[in-house]
Amino acid sequence: MIRLECDYTTGAHPKILEALVNTNEEPCPGYGVDLHCERAREMLRELCQAPDAGVHFLVGGTQTNATVITAALRPHQGVLCAETGHINTHETGAIEAAGHKVLALPGTDGKITAQQIHHYCEAHHTDPAWEHMVQPGMVYLSHPTELGTVYTLAELEEIAAVCHRWRLPLFVDGARLAAGLAASDITLPDLARLCDVFYLGGTKAGLLFGEAVVIPNHNLNHDFRYLIKQHGGMLAKGRLLGVQFETFFTGELFLEIGKKEVAQALRLRRAFEEKGWPLFVDSTTNQQFPVLTNGAKCVLEHKYSFEVWAKVDEAHTAVRFCTSWSTTDEDIDALIADIQAL
Amino acid sequence: MIRLECDYTTGAHPKILEALVNTNEEPCPGYGVDLHCERAREMLRELCQAPDAGVHFLVGGTQTNATVITAALRPHQGVLCAETGHINTHETGAIEAAGHKVLALPGTDGKITAQQIHHYCEAHHTDPAWEHMVQPGMVYLSHPTELGTVYTLAELEEIAAVCHRWRLPLFVDGARLAAGLAASDITLPDLARLCDVFYLGGTKAGLLFGEAVVIPNHNLNHDFRYLIKQHGGMLAKGRLLGVQFETFFTGELFLEIGKKEVAQALRLRRAFEEKGWPLFVDSTTNQQFPVLTNGAKCVLEHKYSFEVWAKVDEAHTAVRFCTSWSTTDEDIDALIADIQAL
Amino acid sequence: MIRLECDYTTGAHPKILEALVNTNEEPCPGYGVDLHCERAREMLRELCQAPDAGVHFLVGGTQTNATVITAALRPHQGVLCAETGHINTHETGAIEAAGHKVLALPGTDGKITAQQIHHYCEAHHTDPAWEHMVQPGMVYLSHPTELGTVYTLAELEEIAAVCHRWRLPLFVDGARLAAGLAASDITLPDLARLCDVFYLGGTKAGLLFGEAVVIPNHNLNHDFRYLIKQHGGMLAKGRLLGVQFETFFTGELFLEIGKKEVAQALRLRRAFEEKGWPLFVDSTTNQQFPVLTNGAKCVLEHKYSFEVWAKVDEAHTAVRFCTSWSTTDEDIDALIADIQAL
Amino acid sequence: MIRLECDYTTGAHPKILEALVNTNEEPCPGYGVDLHCERAREMLRELCQAPDAGVHFLVGGTQTNATVITAALRPHQGVLCAETGHINTHETGAIEAAGHKVLALPGTDGKITAQQIHHYCEAHHTDPAWEHMVQPGMVYLSHPTELGTVYTLAELEEIAAVCHRWRLPLFVDGARLAAGLAASDITLPDLARLCDVFYLGGTKAGLLFGEAVVIPNHNLNHDFRYLIKQHGGMLAKGRLLGVQFETFFTGELFLEIGKKEVAQALRLRRAFEEKGWPLFVDSTTNQQFPVLTNGAKCVLEHKYSFEVWAKVDEAHTAVRFCTSWSTTDEDIDALIADIQAL
Repeated sequence: MIRLECDYTTGAHPKILEALVNTNEEPCPGYGVDLHCERAREMLRELCQAPDAGVHFLVGGTQTNATVITAALRPHQGVLCAETGHINTHETGAIEAAGHKVLALPGTDGKITAQQIHHYCEAHHTDPAWEHMVQPGMVYLSHPTELGTVYTLAELEEIAAVCHRWRLPLFVDGARLAAGLAASDITLPDLARLCDVFYLGGTKAGLLFGEAVVIPNHNLNHDFRYLIKQHGGMLAKGRLLGVQFETFFTGELFLEIGKKEVAQALRLRRAFEEKGWPLFVDSTTNQQFPVLTNGAKCVLEHKYSFEVWAKVDEAHTAVRFCTSWSTTDEDIDALIADIQAL
Repeated sequence: MIRLECDYTTGAHPKILEALVNTNEEPCPGYGVDLHCERAREMLRELCQAPDAGVHFLVGGTQTNATVITAALRPHQGVLCAETGHINTHETGAIEAAGHKVLALPGTDGKITAQQIHHYCEAHHTDPAWEHMVQPGMVYLSHPTELGTVYTLAELEEIAAVCHRWRLPLFVDGARLAAGLAASDITLPDLARLCDVFYLGGTKAGLLFGEAVVIPNHNLNHDFRYLIKQHGGMLAKGRLLGVQFETFFTGELFLEIGKKEVAQALRLRRAFEEKGWPLFVDSTTNQQFPVLTNGAKCVLEHKYSFEVWAKVDEAHTAVRFCTSWSTTDEDIDALIADIQAL
Repeated sequence: MIRLECDYTTGAHPKILEALVNTNEEPCPGYGVDLHCERAREMLRELCQAPDAGVHFLVGGTQTNATVITAALRPHQGVLCAETGHINTHETGAIEAAGHKVLALPGTDGKITAQQIHHYCEAHHTDPAWEHMVQPGMVYLSHPTELGTVYTLAELEEIAAVCHRWRLPLFVDGARLAAGLAASDITLPDLARLCDVFYLGGTKAGLLFGEAVVIPNHNLNHDFRYLIKQHGGMLAKGRLLGVQFETFFTGELFLEIGKKEVAQALRLRRAFEEKGWPLFVDSTTNQQFPVLTNGAKCVLEHKYSFEVWAKVDEAHTAVRFCTSWSTTDEDIDALIADIQAL
Repeated sequence: MIRLECDYTTGAHPKILEALVNTNEEPCPGYGVDLHCERAREMLRELCQAPDAGVHFLVGGTQTNATVITAALRPHQGVLCAETGHINTHETGAIEAAGHKVLALPGTDGKITAQQIHHYCEAHHTDPAWEHMVQPGMVYLSHPTELGTVYTLAELEEIAAVCHRWRLPLFVDGARLAAGLAASDITLPDLARLCDVFYLGGTKAGLLFGEAVVIPNHNLNHDFRYLIKQHGGMLAKGRLLGVQFETFFTGELFLEIGKKEVAQALRLRRAFEEKGWPLFVDSTTNQQFPVLTNGAKCVLEHKYSFEVWAKVDEAHTAVRFCTSWSTTDEDIDALIADIQAL
């Protein structure tokens, strides 16, 4: 069985694992104030060209989203996001559990626009009953989105401008940012310049776990570690995050992993297109969503694991193939051959 | 200016006010355990034919909704309701502030169906990622809805059956229930039989304030007063609620008020129809939503206050006229005459 | 039975009730933006010599405390208060339900000191594990306290200075402030000058209900109405608060009521002292706490209702007598005579 | 520098690390439903002689405490614990952030008694204002406590009996349970028999991270995974927990590690006692709290890292030495020699 159902089926990239083994017996203070964390923070600030940004390492995405959003909002405020946004669909209401409404906007392939944000804010602030409604208090984007699509730099700049106009902090969920950097024209310095806060995910790019949060907005960064602790995200052996991210940043390993994941996924995409299979979403990253006939699906699932995404009609199903740091070129070759043979 | 913009523009119905004046100097214990509250509770249990139901008097609707929903849900659960539901639109996120997601379903004129509820639950419990999503934990209906429409008894029975099947407590927000009782075939005993909890609103039917919550479900009623207190709804001079509701229930004053409100509103409706004005919603209660030409709107607003509801097109606007305990037949006569004269 | 167990046993002061009756049929917009509220707000700003302060009218104390504290704190912050503080003891955890720890300091007769606040903050900010602990984020005082004691102006000034030094908003719960103004050297302008937010309670001084919140701190006042709505404190018929407070402020009726309550209570106090009964707390306001022999308690409770406060020893019990707007001089005369006769 | 300031300064025990390395490339489904987790769950159920208990693996202690307590309480309930309890002191208010008051009882060396719990409940339920106070809803113990002390089986049985009487779920925080099992007469089957929920901590006993939660109470276990997800505790690469705990349970490695930690700590304790240094707390586990003269402290801190616990007087300081899986006998020998030489 070749497993392509998600990008967290295996452990860590060998370099990450090696670094953990090598530093295992080294004693370090807890809670993220060790030298590995310090060095990793410094490396990320440099990669972002943001020497003053706050940098924090958390364990997982749901935790990170809840911590960041709680830090940014007052109690009467909610967070604007696409209907398909992870915080709106797959975090068991963690944002609402922290007291805030997710203000979902209809998205296009997982993306929302500057225009939509502007209209929502304008409508809110001109409604005579404005104080009876949740105030839009920040914007959440995923880049890449949950559907594998990416924002362009021009789109992100427009959104950032609208956020600035309405004084809304802009937050980019980068759980798959390594792939996003490989597949869009948005760079880390762009994110640091345009966002109030964003993160670069490790879990889906070859770390055992870990999300690196960058907070260029100083107000938002103030007292942020209290919130990490309150949300259960302050790992006792924080060195594990420091060691992993140090390695992740060294020689831009994250970008190497992201590029490889994306290249493999695009090879798959071409195979789908050549076969004439429609794409459920026009994704350019490491998640691909072909629409299979039930027959093709049935054949492929004997040898490959993938995720059922949506039933398209009686005869067709959209599925997701996902590449990861551990996907081999041989895995992809085999799958392409099997597709062509169908 | 004849004010028809909402049903809480004036104070209390004369009988209510008189009762408050008459009992003003009578000393009573605080927090709703006085004899007036006790008597009002007993009267409401009789009206509902629910001798064992819990009955509690709270001050306002948002408070009541938050208290009831918090009492019914576990932290990972949300509340199903129509997109137009008051808890989803006009309570500044009070439900989310208490930790719960509002699971909004597209409604038809403010109503949702048994079918929709069933499909949502089925989809949730068959999704492989069910634990990553908010679990539907109860159902919230408004009767009448925010758009003046009502459920039929048959519809309510179907919904109750689906709720029972999925073990979801059923909660009916009756902020305008006095009008609802006058305009539908659903009675108080029906509500007590079919719902786990519902309330009969006083604020919009001639009380200074007050919502009477009926809880036939014993588990839900357990320790409910703690929650009232925690939500700031336990009025120190609780007797004010007892005295008002005693009067409200005596001789079914609430029904008399509801009937009058509805009759006046239906006279208006006929006038709109005779004039050929479309109705934005097919409401049978004390809120009516004609679509006016901008010209008609402009003329009428010199003499009548009403609420702008929605812009229909460049030339037309849907507005809301609302009758209340203090609307006089002369008010309605005048408006009808002015409509006919247009 | 002469009822002295609390200060909310009866309805409204006749002037308040009269104003409600007189304005009952006057149509007003809802939610506190009517002219009565506007006028009452202006009157209170003048009484406070705080022309720019925010003024809001809420229904009850628990609701007010939760709304104010939620408005002032970030999620990792708690509120310092005396162990006997109302928010720490008798609000069913409303502050914690809103996400914040109550940081209780041992009090002396219900009061805390500038020194205690300073030491707590210093200890917090010098502890190496500071980020693992709840950060002190504001200070809550009751004036008068739950035990009837009052702060002096000098004490309040010291506390305000410490709050300023540690950048902690200072919040004074004035549920019984009418009595406090009558019994201490602290005036409304002092409170407006020294506090970030405080309130003047109506419920315990002759209103049907209502608490008038004054917010001299502009940051804290920003968007405050959203929070009132979210906490269920935005009364639909807001005019009821406006009309009551207008009357309450006219000719300083609140002060007249406060003075009378206090004068009656002090007459009682002298009677206890002359009888040689110890005082459980040295209260100078409308709550008095004599220690009775069980025999005396037994005799008095046939004719008077009062609250059992604390068992002192096998033979003695501390009780609370409370005067209110509706306590008559004859009530007090009778009780004093009965005490002397014991 | 020999580091003895806490039990999480180094990485994982070699066997744990080896297991992680060996399984690194094995593909597994995410979120804790892989075979390693399944096997580890089965092993723990056997160790506990609790074949039907729920078992869940979370990342860290604060997260675990918040998840468990949220699962057990209704909104008006709080959790009883010792004043020194971790949830009351060092979790940045995570319990309050989830809506619940921590009801702190004065402890003796970190422990509370059945008696105290009984009195608190009795006082609550007989207080006439009971509904105005937070209801005690569960009991939290730490075993070992934050001060290194342990409960005896007799004490735990008494507490469990009182909890049963008042229908309070009993929760034991076992962040250091491996040491506790080595140092008390309480076994895993005892805990499974007496508690509604408890956990066996991995972080402080040689795992990279991880806490194994056992839930014998079925009601509490119902839907527990939703809550793990909501609290950000559902690790994407859940296999990391499965693999670590499998190894931890194999051959009772956890007990071996706990025993070694404790034996080393008791050697230290004897050295302190022989030197005549008082013990700040009578701890029998892997944390020891000698009171040092400032001179001794100054000498020792050149070669050993330890934690300052409390200033005893001008000349003396209580400190904490902590042994861990990676403490060597040579470390202890060296420290003992240096103590004797002082």
